Order: sequence, then structure tokens, then C-alpha cells
Amino acid sequence: MGDTWENSFTEQERFRIRRLEISDKKKGFIELLGQLTVCESVSDKDFEERYQELANHGDDHVICVIEDTHTEKIVATGSVFIEKKFIRNCAKVGHIEDVVVDSAIRGMQLGKKVVGFLTDHACSVGCYKVILDCNTENKPFYEKCGYKQKSVQMVKYFI
Amino acid sequence: MGDTWENSFTEQERFRIRRLEISDKKKGFIELLGQLTVCESVSDKDFEERYQELANHGDDHVICVIEDTHTEKIVATGSVFIEKKFIRNCAKVGHIEDVVVDSAIRGMQLGKKVVGFLTDHACSVGCYKVILDCNTENKPFYEKCGYKQKSVQMVKYFI
Repeated sequence: MGDTWENSFTEQERFRIRRLEISDKKKGFIELLGQLTVCESVSDKDFEERYQELANHGDDHVICVIEDTHTEKIVATGSVFIEKKFIRNCAKVGHIEDVVVDSAIRGMQLGKKVVGFLTDHACSVGCYKVILDCNTENKPFYEKCGYKQKSVQMVKYFI
Repeated sequence: MGDTWENSFTEQERFRIRRLEISDKKKGFIELLGQLTVCESVSDKDFEERYQELANHGDDHVICVIEDTHTEKIVATGSVFIEKKFIRNCAKVGHIEDVVVDSAIRGMQLGKKVVGFLTDHACSVGCYKVILDCNTENKPFYEKCGYKQKSVQMVKYFI
């Protein structure tokens, strides 16, 4: 029991979860997103502009990261933005996007930690639900995070 | 041919598509949303506050409506908001939500008109794709609008 507690304490110390900071570009944040989808290198200027645009939304757009403090690398990330509606007495809905865990470090529940962080955030700002889209092979992961399938996602590409 | 052209001209005159205006609350906008999901009556103050919050996003959050100019009622609506990402060289994605057509006036392609308006808007502001979630029974409608199924939608409710 002592060992388990100590291990999990060590892991918590090693893997710190927090909001994205502007210095995370140097810690491999963009390269990590490249494991999710096409993610060319972004110039410092473009990164800072987009970072600032998103930061201006405050609690309505949050990107969370997990930093491996041993390597000073970002090893997991995900984002949530808060949509404001008229339905349900001007309700809010959280949308989770772009969840990815470094393939070299999977199996340590870091994805679950990211989704939990984003879900808790949406709840704390008063959303009545959180939604996300995923491939069918990722369904079991999100079910472990407390999500259920509701409908289907449709898409139209312009490029 | 003349009749057909005249009819469609008359329809275009009768059903005007445009962005939501603050005066649309008096034209049954909230009652129309009630055909989509739970949508209690909203006070004028709450409506104006939410309207202003969304209007502050400018082109990043657009609600479109179709007004029946004969009855001065809102008979169709839908919204799109623009998510800004880091992936794909700081790309943008449009999210379509809350599409509904008055059940008394279906079969006149008004839903297709709304989705087209929102899709064109997302394209015009530089999105590389537009996504939306729908029940499987609405899939054929969105396929007619040029959408294809991509993945599944997962949800977690807080209430």
C-alpha cells in the first residue's frame, strides 16, 4: 500500500496538469499535436497570435496540457470551448477537441486525466453537458471517462 | 417555366434569410427553438444579454434565421461558431448547431437553405471544414446538404 501511494505520488509530481502556457511551444506542444493530425510547424509569431486570441476567451476556451517535469516535454493535451446557447434558458455546452497523449508514454491514464480536467472545467463554468466526437475505436476510452454515444458526426471539407 | 420562376421568386421574397436580430424574440425565435429541444421562455433581459455576448464574437458566431415576411414569424434557424485551433497551421473549424425548421412549414427546402447559409459563412471566414452532430434519422437530410458521416458523438450530462 505504501509503495502504491508513493508511486502515484511520484507520478503526480512528475506529470503536472495545467493550462497551456506560451512557453509550451518550446516544450514540444506543436509536435505533440502532430501525433493527432496534420500539424505543420507554426512560427513563433503565429503561435503567439493564436495563443492570445484563445486566451482572450478566458474560461470559455481552455487548453490543458500535461508536462513531464523530468523531460520538460508536453506529453498530453486537450481543449474545451464553451458554447453559449439560447435553448434551455440560455444554457452552455462544453465541446472537447484535440485530445492526444504522446505515443511513447501511453498507458499511464494521462488521457483520462486530460479529459477529466476539461470535463470538470466545463462543469465548473455551468455547462449542462459536454460533447465530443471520436472514432469508433476510441469509444471505449471515452466510456471509461463517463461518456456515452449519442449521435453521429457529419462533416463537409472545403479543401 | 414562367410559373416556376415566378413561384420561386415569390418564395424568395416571402422567406428572407439573414442573421438574427434582437427584435426576432418578438417574432417567435425562442418558440421555434422549443421545437428542437427544451427551451423555456427567456426574459427580455436574459435574451438581450446572450444576444450581445454572441454578437461580440462577430463573424465567429453567427445565428441565421429565415423570416416568413407574410406572417412576420421566424420559421427556420441554425447557428455556426468558428473554433480556432493550432493544428493544420492554426486552422479554423466551423461547428453547426441548433438547426430547426417550423414543423408547420416543412418541405420547402428551408432547412437546406439554413445549412447552406451557415456552411458558406464558415467557408468564407477560412474554415477548412464544418462539422455537426445529428441523429441517424437526420443523416439523409445532411447528406443532401453535402455532408458525410465521419465519426460518433459522445456526451456527458451534468444534470
